[in-house]
Amino acid sequence: MSKIKVGVIGASGFVGAELTKILLNHPDVEITGLSSMNHVGKPLSEVYPAFTGQYDLNFNNNATVIEQADVLFLCLPHGESENLVKQCMDQSKKVIDVGADFRLKDLDLYKEWYGVDVEFPALHEQAVYGLSEMNREEIKRTKLVANPGCYPTSILLGLYPAISNKLVAPGSLIIDAKSGVTGAGKALSEGTNYALKNEGFNAYKVATHRHTPEIEEKLKLMGAGETKVSFVPHLLPANRGILSTMYVDILDGIDAKSIQNIYENWYEDEPFVTVLKAGKLPDISHVQHSNQCQIGLTIDKRTNRLIIVSVIDNMQKGAAGQAVQNFNLMLGIDEIKGLSMVAPSF
Amino acid sequence: MSKIKVGVIGASGFVGAELTKILLNHPDVEITGLSSMNHVGKPLSEVYPAFTGQYDLNFNNNATVIEQADVLFLCLPHGESENLVKQCMDQSKKVIDVGADFRLKDLDLYKEWYGVDVEFPALHEQAVYGLSEMNREEIKRTKLVANPGCYPTSILLGLYPAISNKLVAPGSLIIDAKSGVTGAGKALSEGTNYALKNEGFNAYKVATHRHTPEIEEKLKLMGAGETKVSFVPHLLPANRGILSTMYVDILDGIDAKSIQNIYENWYEDEPFVTVLKAGKLPDISHVQHSNQCQIGLTIDKRTNRLIIVSVIDNMQKGAAGQAVQNFNLMLGIDEIKGLSMVAPSF
Amino acid sequence: MSKIKVGVIGASGFVGAELTKILLNHPDVEITGLSSMNHVGKPLSEVYPAFTGQYDLNFNNNATVIEQADVLFLCLPHGESENLVKQCMDQSKKVIDVGADFRLKDLDLYKEWYGVDVEFPALHEQAVYGLSEMNREEIKRTKLVANPGCYPTSILLGLYPAISNKLVAPGSLIIDAKSGVTGAGKALSEGTNYALKNEGFNAYKVATHRHTPEIEEKLKLMGAGETKVSFVPHLLPANRGILSTMYVDILDGIDAKSIQNIYENWYEDEPFVTVLKAGKLPDISHVQHSNQCQIGLTIDKRTNRLIIVSVIDNMQKGAAGQAVQNFNLMLGIDEIKGLSMVAPSF
Amino acid sequence: MSKIKVGVIGASGFVGAELTKILLNHPDVEITGLSSMNHVGKPLSEVYPAFTGQYDLNFNNNATVIEQADVLFLCLPHGESENLVKQCMDQSKKVIDVGADFRLKDLDLYKEWYGVDVEFPALHEQAVYGLSEMNREEIKRTKLVANPGCYPTSILLGLYPAISNKLVAPGSLIIDAKSGVTGAGKALSEGTNYALKNEGFNAYKVATHRHTPEIEEKLKLMGAGETKVSFVPHLLPANRGILSTMYVDILDGIDAKSIQNIYENWYEDEPFVTVLKAGKLPDISHVQHSNQCQIGLTIDKRTNRLIIVSVIDNMQKGAAGQAVQNFNLMLGIDEIKGLSMVAPSF
Repeated sequence: MSKIKVGVIGASGFVGAELTKILLNHPDVEITGLSSMNHVGKPLSEVYPAFTGQYDLNFNNNATVIEQADVLFLCLPHGESENLVKQCMDQSKKVIDVGADFRLKDLDLYKEWYGVDVEFPALHEQAVYGLSEMNREEIKRTKLVANPGCYPTSILLGLYPAISNKLVAPGSLIIDAKSGVTGAGKALSEGTNYALKNEGFNAYKVATHRHTPEIEEKLKLMGAGETKVSFVPHLLPANRGILSTMYVDILDGIDAKSIQNIYENWYEDEPFVTVLKAGKLPDISHVQHSNQCQIGLTIDKRTNRLIIVSVIDNMQKGAAGQAVQNFNLMLGIDEIKGLSMVAPSF
Repeated sequence: MSKIKVGVIGASGFVGAELTKILLNHPDVEITGLSSMNHVGKPLSEVYPAFTGQYDLNFNNNATVIEQADVLFLCLPHGESENLVKQCMDQSKKVIDVGADFRLKDLDLYKEWYGVDVEFPALHEQAVYGLSEMNREEIKRTKLVANPGCYPTSILLGLYPAISNKLVAPGSLIIDAKSGVTGAGKALSEGTNYALKNEGFNAYKVATHRHTPEIEEKLKLMGAGETKVSFVPHLLPANRGILSTMYVDILDGIDAKSIQNIYENWYEDEPFVTVLKAGKLPDISHVQHSNQCQIGLTIDKRTNRLIIVSVIDNMQKGAAGQAVQNFNLMLGIDEIKGLSMVAPSF
Repeated sequence: MSKIKVGVIGASGFVGAELTKILLNHPDVEITGLSSMNHVGKPLSEVYPAFTGQYDLNFNNNATVIEQADVLFLCLPHGESENLVKQCMDQSKKVIDVGADFRLKDLDLYKEWYGVDVEFPALHEQAVYGLSEMNREEIKRTKLVANPGCYPTSILLGLYPAISNKLVAPGSLIIDAKSGVTGAGKALSEGTNYALKNEGFNAYKVATHRHTPEIEEKLKLMGAGETKVSFVPHLLPANRGILSTMYVDILDGIDAKSIQNIYENWYEDEPFVTVLKAGKLPDISHVQHSNQCQIGLTIDKRTNRLIIVSVIDNMQKGAAGQAVQNFNLMLGIDEIKGLSMVAPSF
Repeated sequence: MSKIKVGVIGASGFVGAELTKILLNHPDVEITGLSSMNHVGKPLSEVYPAFTGQYDLNFNNNATVIEQADVLFLCLPHGESENLVKQCMDQSKKVIDVGADFRLKDLDLYKEWYGVDVEFPALHEQAVYGLSEMNREEIKRTKLVANPGCYPTSILLGLYPAISNKLVAPGSLIIDAKSGVTGAGKALSEGTNYALKNEGFNAYKVATHRHTPEIEEKLKLMGAGETKVSFVPHLLPANRGILSTMYVDILDGIDAKSIQNIYENWYEDEPFVTVLKAGKLPDISHVQHSNQCQIGLTIDKRTNRLIIVSVIDNMQKGAAGQAVQNFNLMLGIDEIKGLSMVAPSF
């Protein structure tokens, strides 16, 4: 079979670089172009020297990259995808938008939290939220996937069985999440200055992070009803990984002992989600550089709360890996193709 | 004035080393002895080469160190202090027990969580819980201080104004805490193996950590009533620092806007606690190597919760620093003497 | 084609775990057994939780693993391979010994530096030193490969063109090498205790490291004559990677400007060695998690020295990756199969 | 005694912040002003939140800070000090220039390596090179100290006894140095981007670093004659610390066994330099956050080389600490006053 022509828009950022590396190893893919705002004409290996001598391509402009590919990955800051997605769709390309523009169905919410006006509402209606484990069938049929945010991926996978099976009270939900520094992207800032971050750890955007409405909207689709969650992200002194600790009241009448089984059964056939045995807890080091999600459960009997700990690699299952998982589904390819199934152990 | 003769029991562990370094710089102190279980006869500088050429003393046995000092710091695993404290008290020494043996007033709770029987209940009654900001006057008058646990220190300082002023509902309290690796002590284990921890981050002892009853008992003393909290500690890939994120429902009728002021006023005169201005958040890097605690407050209006973020250095305010603060109080010395007031900025 | 049955002896160590992960992704390999000294009967995933839910196998004893495989990788401390290699060879298995036992041809040197007696000298004669770029043809024909040490791999690849082409004076050679902590292995020690290593950096085994005679013997095979080098290893606060900085006098009559070209030509067709363009320097982050070696050259005109900087991942090209490269050569498989060609960029 | 009025020029950089923290604890000092290029009017605590609630001062302009102080510390990029030093000297202030402008006596060399013209040669003649251990008496008498570079401090202290006592051949000297990231300063750059540096390690400015002529000129003053050294700096994934590994041929006729003693005697009375016992090696973690230098010696008998390993904290003995040491000498204060004598052990 001839290879699928793929382009990456915004390939000079961290997600773009991760995606390029994954796509290079994907047996069904031919990368036809990489675009960048600031590096047009410059070779990939100059921005990311890990590629030197192994693979190279000069960054090009968006229009050329779109034109030469059949499938486009967009890795752009919010507000910058919508127009380019329109161009792609007008040229009958398939699109995985790794940015935030198409994640929310409620466009008022989008405007409220992102401060951006929507120009093409029909596109937003058409977009499928690309949490593969939740929307697999719709993803297979769509031409436009909105790849989930990194935090929501770890959080929604951790909550999906509990919410869908009505084991817990959504209104009691508190989410304390911690991310590696790559989540902050490649742009230089004091927050990612090595000397200041190396032994630093902090909460940020407390109860105001833009992933909040995404979490709430998707929980509603899982059956939670209208919910407001407290969501606090923190920045770890580590490169990769998100660990989300979620606290939620177990509903009256639910047998707490059954929860572990319900989770294990729910994800039994999922290639990228593993529910750890009772008593085991995940570590971000278990999933780094892989597309895996690991989930550990604890019943806090003293307070009758379910405490869920979920880990992913924010660059893989939280961004580029999940994007390729969605690409595989959209193109009718084996879902795991080209993806890393086992993290290095150190 | 002649210097106070001070001995450190269990000086070869991390807390003991930190304490020795602080005491060396304390103008009123003469270190008369350092004891160790495994290193008797060996010089301090062999175990901690930072002391080489500047200060040295051979580790001695407990009995000799106790005998030669007027004030003893005990830095021992739980269950190992009680007997030695008895010996010290019988010899009319003053004691700061940095371990866990005397922290809980409810001895049944102590037995339940620590699995250790109490031999000298009168001593436990006599011990004063050494959270200096809460029990300053009692500490001044006692001969036996139970130095608080590292997590409880950060948590109780963060909650003290809210609980005392009845601003929040204690029963809703969720505490998500993160500690640097020095908190795990000097003993070798896989959890502190560099290669496995360097880019790792995990929750541990979820809802079962022994600091839980300490937190609950002291909250009760602050006015919370009987409370069960969900407390989940995590291990950061960093040496020092605890950041505790606390979530608690604001009580009906409380003006959320007043909370910031109440906190600022509450700690106005405290030398080691700083409430950050509204909108500012603390980072463990702001307090490392100092005896400071920084607290940042956020009102989550969407859920009417108060979110408190509190940071300390677990080796300083969380252990050795607070122990010296208590020592200063007990001996009638200026409370800040010998203590680090400002953290290095990097 | 049916898959090749492969066993790993000493699979519970770091190199064994890395090798298992690589072999899992190798399309021509079936792992038939993993052995361990201390974990027989225990599942791999319990020792390395990254495998959970994706792949598992209980550790077995050496004899069974040897019997069930056609090719064996041995990942053992020095002195422990020789006997097992004998067993493997007697059963007509092919062997890649990742340990040190067969690296030195001069058995007196081996005894001098390792303090171990040789029992089967014929085996040592038979063994081929597995620096693939140097001994490719012999590796293809042998049944026993001695996989090079991690430091020697980075050093010999960096020096090979200069020594072979007689550009430099071997007697002037000084090698300052720095390794990540995984090189110290999984055994717990103070040197790899997170709190002590996190912000630590030190030289160790100064001019006495056992890789010294290996470097000198192989340099001799490259044409250096009898040489004594000063070799000083250091331990970086990082997980993976070796960076070797080599200083050597340029011979009279050599046109310093030609050296860059000679290097580039020398390695032009090598899949795993890249000579960076003049003015570029390598970083261990350019090769981590890949089997690549990057080399950067500087002519110090003021002293007429050649300064070579070479980087590899000690777990990959320095151990498990190179072992699989040798396996591919021995089995007539495409040399790069199953190996990581491009490092993640962060 | 009334306190000495001290101002810091360029106080918003890393060295400035470190200096401010040290000066705050200095019993004889009153900080009268802090200047900054970019932050005039902003409080110190906004740039360095570790100071919050403990000490604060708004950054002011250079002229005001100079006017209000009797002693000035200048912490500026090269080329920016000369003019300000002239202003200070014209106002009869004492100056410690922590930058590079006055370090070289050979002004042609200065121009060649720094590309900057000298305007006030007389000032350069007047400046005393502030390696306290070498120039103590001159420092006591001068009004202008040129504080040494961080690398040269670690290197010159390591070589001083060997060169002065003519134990080694200076022409054979090779210096491989490794620094923590704070040495790169506060300005944002890719090289100090956390995600790229966290697990990175690289050589930079190979044989072209501006500290080279400083090392060579001062070695000459120690008796080395005209020498060209190969000096290669590397950037560690750690905040603080310089470890310099120096390789130099032992001269014929020198008894290698005597070298350890010569070193120990040489530095016997120095408060900030410790020669470790034979067989012991220093680690940057032994000196971080202190003004100490530790030196370890190895005789490489196989090559008859002396290998010297020297460690300092680049922010302390390599910059702000040594500046205060010089200040103490200039002002007739006890040399160790206000300085940290023992590093934290972790």
